[in-house]
Amino acid sequence: MSIIVQKYGGSSVADADKIRNVARRAIRSKEAGNDVVVVVSAMGKTTDQLIALAHQITDQPIPRELDSLLSTGEIVTSTLLSMALRSMGHEAVSLTGAQAGIRTDSTYTKARIKGINPKRILKELEEGKIVVVAGFQGLTDDLDVTTLGRGGSDTTAVALAIALKAKQCDIYTDVDGVYTADPRIVPNARKLDEIGYEEMLEMASVGSKVMHNRAVELGWVYHMPILVASSFNDNPGTLIHGGASMEIRNKVTGIAHDLNVAKVSILGIPDKPGIASAIFEALADAGISVDTIVQNASTDRIADLTFTVARGEVKKAMEVLKPVIKSIGARDCVSDATLGKVSIVGAGMQTGPGYAARMFKALSERGINIEMITTSEIRITCIIEGSRVPEAVKALHDAFELEAG
Amino acid sequence: MSIIVQKYGGSSVADADKIRNVARRAIRSKEAGNDVVVVVSAMGKTTDQLIALAHQITDQPIPRELDSLLSTGEIVTSTLLSMALRSMGHEAVSLTGAQAGIRTDSTYTKARIKGINPKRILKELEEGKIVVVAGFQGLTDDLDVTTLGRGGSDTTAVALAIALKAKQCDIYTDVDGVYTADPRIVPNARKLDEIGYEEMLEMASVGSKVMHNRAVELGWVYHMPILVASSFNDNPGTLIHGGASMEIRNKVTGIAHDLNVAKVSILGIPDKPGIASAIFEALADAGISVDTIVQNASTDRIADLTFTVARGEVKKAMEVLKPVIKSIGARDCVSDATLGKVSIVGAGMQTGPGYAARMFKALSERGINIEMITTSEIRITCIIEGSRVPEAVKALHDAFELEAG
Repeated sequence: MSIIVQKYGGSSVADADKIRNVARRAIRSKEAGNDVVVVVSAMGKTTDQLIALAHQITDQPIPRELDSLLSTGEIVTSTLLSMALRSMGHEAVSLTGAQAGIRTDSTYTKARIKGINPKRILKELEEGKIVVVAGFQGLTDDLDVTTLGRGGSDTTAVALAIALKAKQCDIYTDVDGVYTADPRIVPNARKLDEIGYEEMLEMASVGSKVMHNRAVELGWVYHMPILVASSFNDNPGTLIHGGASMEIRNKVTGIAHDLNVAKVSILGIPDKPGIASAIFEALADAGISVDTIVQNASTDRIADLTFTVARGEVKKAMEVLKPVIKSIGARDCVSDATLGKVSIVGAGMQTGPGYAARMFKALSERGINIEMITTSEIRITCIIEGSRVPEAVKALHDAFELEAG
Repeated sequence: MSIIVQKYGGSSVADADKIRNVARRAIRSKEAGNDVVVVVSAMGKTTDQLIALAHQITDQPIPRELDSLLSTGEIVTSTLLSMALRSMGHEAVSLTGAQAGIRTDSTYTKARIKGINPKRILKELEEGKIVVVAGFQGLTDDLDVTTLGRGGSDTTAVALAIALKAKQCDIYTDVDGVYTADPRIVPNARKLDEIGYEEMLEMASVGSKVMHNRAVELGWVYHMPILVASSFNDNPGTLIHGGASMEIRNKVTGIAHDLNVAKVSILGIPDKPGIASAIFEALADAGISVDTIVQNASTDRIADLTFTVARGEVKKAMEVLKPVIKSIGARDCVSDATLGKVSIVGAGMQTGPGYAARMFKALSERGINIEMITTSEIRITCIIEGSRVPEAVKALHDAFELEAG
């Protein structure tokens, strides 16, 4: 028998009825002849509620204690799903991350998986049971509980699929799969049947939040096919796999966007070595993630430097930079928190010319001004006025004829 | 330094403010020069809520899964208390039952502690930390999570106190200690400064629900003094210890009562061997606990047999007995679910005469009819009409001059 790992997110297990629905789906997969391992998230908003509880106690919850606290959310779901499976007449057992053999480092709140000992899971599968694993958590060598960070249950599922040599990892969520663009913006967006790992990473990194990037990276490194599909219907979903990137039919796979973009510009910087590192070290020390960075060509040994951060980080970034600006002798620092990002993503782009030109033309025809441009091998991203993002996504979806497939 | 174990029940940790209160009490004990281990229950009604959640999934939750589910309640409290302690500037760490080294058998929902490996707790204490242990739970040799049954956190606390060679185990609850009678019924009831283990067991077994009997038994066997006191004030509480039973000043220690009593009588039973076992086996198979049993002297080889059960079990008991009555050839089976119990408890009673007579007189003077009588070495219990119980408790409290102390 081949092993299949299925992961169900918080909205798919939000109440007793939804948990029964998940049980029926797992049973169907078992009855189709698979050994089934199900990874579950915490029910609905449980994780947020537990975090709120911790904040009633202290502004700064201790990471080790927070992890132990949050891990209970997934344990609750796993026991309930196991009970549901048993009440439907199927043998089942729930396992915590620790019981499932998931060992991590001790970086609390964002631990990395060091290895998985699948002995217990394999034993339970051999006994004919459906195994339900509490996602998002693991155990350190000192037997302390850790969590893998937001979206960590996706990582649990893919890592288990790899350790168990599963044929596939299914990520069930509340959307039907990966689309050529956000269907709420582009009504004729098309669901992709397949997508490459790298394209998926680029789509996610620029705002298509279907699943957690760490999990996709893990699947990529170990060649584990990942199916993203809805837990609420039987539509076929999108398969993320290695083969997809090679079979290039349409060079642009999808349009991603992100509205959570702010820009910070430091003006009049003396062009001396060590200045960029002073700026970005200060930001890193404050825990601020910087995205796109652009530095213009210096004239008269004076440069301007612009970078983007999440909108919620702008205020903090400006505060952190105030003393730095002074010490490096820059003229000024300004910010704009009303920006957005729009990207075209496609594995074939690096080999074909003209994508950038076609993108810029589509935007300029609609009078959309491009503030910054950043590219990877398989992605071109433009930073534009946030209010124009939906229009830009639609324009690009049309320009690259994504509806047709 | 000497180790002290403190246990706080669900009402003492019901919200963030109460958890902070517990943190302050633990710190005070630490600053008084003790190594402090705190055992906590689930917050307020959490356990009941988790059970209700399981019942939304299935009428018959799997015991193994139920235990794993319920164990999360105590884990949540333990992490929050640890955070509270740290926010007040004290080093602290929370441990699950598993991390605390509590090993049990695999009798899910009412597991027995097989042993405790205190290595981790001792290491954390040596580092100067206050150690917070999630009560009510343990781990089997197969690494499955178990719970110790209702009130199991008391058992966790006493067992830890024994394993850690603590000088005392403090059980903090929402009452000030053990009283000579229920203060809601007898306003001048007196709080006992001390009580013997055996007396405490008898008080509990007949309705004084201050703490869990298993924990008292454990304390008795290993000579661990247990202080029962309130978490909401600094009143001295009641010390349960071995010395107390020997120092007998007043021969009756307290009056206990219980309103959850029903009587079942089987009438006209042919007096043949094996009949009693047929009746009580049938009840045991149905999971019905039987308390007092009285069989009258048989006349003409025909006997009547009466026993008591909890009120909620009467209907089930009558159903279970229907076929048995028929098969043994008894005449009839009747029940009365409106009864109550009143008991006098005292370690000196077995050596002094006249306690029973004084008890029966006090009741008869008030026209209270005694339905059944049962005794142990240190207790006399009368089963009476439930509605007369408060009056009977008051009468006995007066008759044995318990107010004076």
